[in-house]
Amino acid sequence: MKIAVLGCGTVGSGVVDILDKKPCLMEKSAGEEIGVKYILDIRDFSGSPYASRIVNDIDIIAEDPEIGVVVETMGGVEPAFTFCKKCLEKGKSVVSSNKALVAAKAQELFAAAKESNASFMFEASVCGGIPVIRTMFSSLSANKILSFHGILNGTTNFILTKMIDEKMSFDTALKIAQEKGYAEKDPTADVDGIDAARKTAILSSIAYGHHFFEDEIHTEGIRGVTLEDAAYADSYNCRIKLLGKADSRNNGKIGAIVCPFFVGNDSMISGVNGVYNAISITGDSIGDVLLYGQGAGKEATASAVVGDVMECVRLKKNEKHYFWENHEDGIVEDYLEYETALYVRGYAKNPGDSLINIREAFGGVKVLERKGAPGNEIAFITPVMKEKELREILSDLKDFASASVIRVL
Amino acid sequence: MKIAVLGCGTVGSGVVDILDKKPCLMEKSAGEEIGVKYILDIRDFSGSPYASRIVNDIDIIAEDPEIGVVVETMGGVEPAFTFCKKCLEKGKSVVSSNKALVAAKAQELFAAAKESNASFMFEASVCGGIPVIRTMFSSLSANKILSFHGILNGTTNFILTKMIDEKMSFDTALKIAQEKGYAEKDPTADVDGIDAARKTAILSSIAYGHHFFEDEIHTEGIRGVTLEDAAYADSYNCRIKLLGKADSRNNGKIGAIVCPFFVGNDSMISGVNGVYNAISITGDSIGDVLLYGQGAGKEATASAVVGDVMECVRLKKNEKHYFWENHEDGIVEDYLEYETALYVRGYAKNPGDSLINIREAFGGVKVLERKGAPGNEIAFITPVMKEKELREILSDLKDFASASVIRVL
Repeated sequence: MKIAVLGCGTVGSGVVDILDKKPCLMEKSAGEEIGVKYILDIRDFSGSPYASRIVNDIDIIAEDPEIGVVVETMGGVEPAFTFCKKCLEKGKSVVSSNKALVAAKAQELFAAAKESNASFMFEASVCGGIPVIRTMFSSLSANKILSFHGILNGTTNFILTKMIDEKMSFDTALKIAQEKGYAEKDPTADVDGIDAARKTAILSSIAYGHHFFEDEIHTEGIRGVTLEDAAYADSYNCRIKLLGKADSRNNGKIGAIVCPFFVGNDSMISGVNGVYNAISITGDSIGDVLLYGQGAGKEATASAVVGDVMECVRLKKNEKHYFWENHEDGIVEDYLEYETALYVRGYAKNPGDSLINIREAFGGVKVLERKGAPGNEIAFITPVMKEKELREILSDLKDFASASVIRVL
Repeated sequence: MKIAVLGCGTVGSGVVDILDKKPCLMEKSAGEEIGVKYILDIRDFSGSPYASRIVNDIDIIAEDPEIGVVVETMGGVEPAFTFCKKCLEKGKSVVSSNKALVAAKAQELFAAAKESNASFMFEASVCGGIPVIRTMFSSLSANKILSFHGILNGTTNFILTKMIDEKMSFDTALKIAQEKGYAEKDPTADVDGIDAARKTAILSSIAYGHHFFEDEIHTEGIRGVTLEDAAYADSYNCRIKLLGKADSRNNGKIGAIVCPFFVGNDSMISGVNGVYNAISITGDSIGDVLLYGQGAGKEATASAVVGDVMECVRLKKNEKHYFWENHEDGIVEDYLEYETALYVRGYAKNPGDSLINIREAFGGVKVLERKGAPGNEIAFITPVMKEKELREILSDLKDFASASVIRVL
């Protein structure tokens, strides 16, 4: 069976390299010889080992009966969507690493795959090398997913780890992340939580069987997290982590949020540092399962793509249909309705009086301390109640200006 | 499609309960209605919800064309093997949670499945609810597995956790494990590492494509681990864990061992406590992946079985063949050939002189200390060298009697 790769960038070239360099492993795993016949790219690859296989016209791939699986590693919604749909309609299975495409267009691609009895797989689109999609779809298929939460973005986890372990400022840590190639020049998608929200949307769609769009998920990034907050978290035996989190709620709605959390050091997630990712999933039968690994990187991501390719070849044209439905409006719970505890740090002219007010307003708080705190700084953990109520109490407090508010997991 | 369940014990009844109680989830996941038609068991279930479906004759199941998938949760090699083979030969897919069966007879069952184009799956046979089999076979199929190591037995991890965190003796911790139902009356299979060796054999077979038998794996249990050792491990920023470990070695052999290890507190594995299991796998492309969850328990294990059943239904009769080959004699590396560092605790009449001898013999060691150690106790970490050489040096030491030797991961 022959493979075509659309887009020969970082991940695409990684896919071609694995398929070129491990023919024995591939044949053993897939049960037949496979190889890359076409690479679709508009750039010039003359002189490279890819040159003889470069094509510019998707129809050459879509119309070639030898091509059984098409790998899409172009990124972006268009023209990736048009190309993938065309190939699926021609009965070719499609494997994508493109989370923008999956988050926006998965349902149309599932339908096209089902129609022509082909597969559409996308393991590499969420957290690179971590097998979270296959685990949710297959291994946990006997479970109602009660909730999941995870470190879904390696760049922000790298920055937070530097801030916590080396007391480095956000700006310095971001600069190092950029120097190491973990963060883009414009780091917005990472540090503002947009990338994590997209992944949370895809995982929520799988977990709850309805399509969730990233803009349905309340999203806060890590720009507001300070070294003071990290010190207070430490004093509370926690670490600050940017999590994507979703759960099925008693009222039938789905809660889904991306924001920094205080995470207790007794949890596995708090020990996930640097660019590593991890996802903890709770099923009604299986209890807690945690998956950990490299969420990005050329080789890890390409390896996940090739894992899907092998599966497609093994399954040949036999239906393995992932799917999820549209959801009705209002299925996503307003995050202000969640029950949570909050960490709050702020300043008061008369801290002694303020603390009395704060204790009274919340019905008791856990006051935190840190070395070197200025005399007018107050930090505390609230009791658990609806976030809406917590925010109201907070805004009604007189003589106390909050500087940082972080949810406690 | 109708299901038959062989053996209605803890896991088997859990499987029937999930299939009975979640028809909507099952239909959504499998794409068609499914239900349990037969339960094979020799015991009396009159009055139970299972009663009307109990049969005593495997041929009723094997000959019924309505039965598409057979679940084997009997345990033991026979008659499970004969029953599974018969069902596979009749074209029915088989899902097993039985590690004794898989460790002894997987190859014959793979062959029978391939012959009749059915599936043989066994996710639940290793570490209950943790999706390690599917991950190794499918998600990591683009990888050469360089190594894996894991906490594969919850009972021993529970005992070690109690010893480390609560300074409880081995005997007391074992008694609590027995009271809680984690350990059998005869705890041999758990505490002597036999259960972990069986799982290590199955995982090695998947990772390296050859059938490994449990008696090919050098196995040491945790009976010899003492509170003193736990204290020294703590002083070295480690925890003692019983690990199953395998790796592919430069000489083409496979190293496979089950024994207690000093595990550094900076690794995810050292944070896995109580009855939880975890497996860390290193692939040549994907890097490190870690899977964590409940390694046993009725619901978690049953949920893994049902996950396989759903996959079989989705795949229908279309080939998804797991397999591994026989290996030549001598492919398993002698554990004495491994390079490792050892933790050694022992006693000497003249500790000062002994330490000078020890340092000289090993070319330097890291001496460990603990509170309350008797004056004649010495504990140290050796340099990394072949275990054979370390053992020779150790046995040649005069005036030093070693009481404990534990490998350092």
